[in-house]
Amino acid sequence: MAAAEVVKVIKVFGGSLTKFKHTSAVCKCPMVYSVFTPSTASVESPAPLVMWLSGLTCTDDNFMQKAGAFEAATQHGITICCPDTSPRQENKIDGEEDSWDFGTGAGFYVNATEEGFSNQGYNMYDYVTQELPTLLAEDKSIDTANVSIMGHSMGGHGALVCALKNPGKYKSASAFAPICHPTGCPWGEKAFNGYLGSVEAGQEYDASLLVKSYDGPKLNILSDQGGADSFLTGDVDQLQPATLVDGAKDNANIALNSRSQEGYDHSYFFIASFIREHLDFHAGFLKA
Amino acid sequence: MAAAEVVKVIKVFGGSLTKFKHTSAVCKCPMVYSVFTPSTASVESPAPLVMWLSGLTCTDDNFMQKAGAFEAATQHGITICCPDTSPRQENKIDGEEDSWDFGTGAGFYVNATEEGFSNQGYNMYDYVTQELPTLLAEDKSIDTANVSIMGHSMGGHGALVCALKNPGKYKSASAFAPICHPTGCPWGEKAFNGYLGSVEAGQEYDASLLVKSYDGPKLNILSDQGGADSFLTGDVDQLQPATLVDGAKDNANIALNSRSQEGYDHSYFFIASFIREHLDFHAGFLKA
Repeated sequence: MAAAEVVKVIKVFGGSLTKFKHTSAVCKCPMVYSVFTPSTASVESPAPLVMWLSGLTCTDDNFMQKAGAFEAATQHGITICCPDTSPRQENKIDGEEDSWDFGTGAGFYVNATEEGFSNQGYNMYDYVTQELPTLLAEDKSIDTANVSIMGHSMGGHGALVCALKNPGKYKSASAFAPICHPTGCPWGEKAFNGYLGSVEAGQEYDASLLVKSYDGPKLNILSDQGGADSFLTGDVDQLQPATLVDGAKDNANIALNSRSQEGYDHSYFFIASFIREHLDFHAGFLKA
Repeated sequence: MAAAEVVKVIKVFGGSLTKFKHTSAVCKCPMVYSVFTPSTASVESPAPLVMWLSGLTCTDDNFMQKAGAFEAATQHGITICCPDTSPRQENKIDGEEDSWDFGTGAGFYVNATEEGFSNQGYNMYDYVTQELPTLLAEDKSIDTANVSIMGHSMGGHGALVCALKNPGKYKSASAFAPICHPTGCPWGEKAFNGYLGSVEAGQEYDASLLVKSYDGPKLNILSDQGGADSFLTGDVDQLQPATLVDGAKDNANIALNSRSQEGYDHSYFFIASFIREHLDFHAGFLKA
């Protein structure tokens, strides 16, 4: 694997925010990701890692600029890595740039099987769970054996699915306003039809289904949903937090804390309001 | 004065972020500003106010989205108001939209005297020190008698100048990478020539000059400057923190803590890293 190139480094909270670029074998194009390294991290004392998966239309920048996560991450000594949300193929695929909820910026954290997408690197699942962690492991100040995962909206779906499909790989998982049941909502139906050829094929990427049959080591999940989120309260419920609760309720291997936060919307202001609690939650497992 | 209209309200950290729009008599156009109200504020227990003045090209949004200030503001029970950085005249004035450091987004917190700008509302000094506080006073959950002021870059200049020209009006002042000596740097020279007709006329808006003759009640100022800020270290020093220190050194009415923060740049990542310390500083005076 080619090493990642440093695009820029910005000092923040005594640590650093580094933007990397590399040629992704999985995504078949140059990919950018950002890493926050707390001041406490060193080769002698590598810091545990939290992967953040962003939502529709986002890049590696949104979380880093808006989540306000660095103070808590510094206090816990946690590294945070934000990948991009899709390959950036410069419109090589018909329809790739036509909508904000499919194609560019909307990889949905699956491995595409439909021609066009599959051969143009729409393999964000392998990218997030395999290629990127291997690349991060080259940085000896990151304890890549000690990883948790979280995300927002499409990225909340991604975080839950990555954790549920890889028992033991992540110490904990959390989500803000995740798309809990993508085979039962328009965003997920569009993505699975487009990338996988059918909604049915998306069942292997549906957290509310996967959580029923998960049989790995006890997985702790924290999920927050804003009560005034228009994607929850609008004409179409894209998020369906109750399906995740229902799916998990009879599985003793899952410890799900699903919370409704009254009055909060779908924005990064909601995320910023609770990011410290999520990092506290992950720190409890990463540093146990 | 016409009341301000609520454009939107977003819940954050248990409080609210409200965007207002009003027709400004001083700026002669519709103006937008944002207010963060902590959960602790009420008519019975009004919260002190910190005004934030933004830098070149910014709107009321930048600080609210990127500074990560709400947790500390909530803990201190402080309201924060962010005005815009200039009138938004929709290109009524020749040259208004030609450059990023003059005209739209670059009002420089002066009252223009040059025709064109003066009669098109480039009066951000009066707007920030008079019209906006009067408007804010209609909200009885804000203790507008108990105000501090801070800002970034052009807004750091603005915050220092507002405090130095209005003894006793602000309980404290702080700045991130302020333009300390605008009559001696290209940004200031361009602004003062354009808005005031000469650089000399800008002397009344130059913090490094004003700080020498300030004779009001003891004014406490905290200023942070990133050591890797390209506007400090580049070919042209737009910021000149040493001139402020030099101006203040023989004035017993000024208590200036001017700090250099090694390795930090000019961005909101720098601001986010120290915003808690600035709010701690202001809280010490606002809640004394």
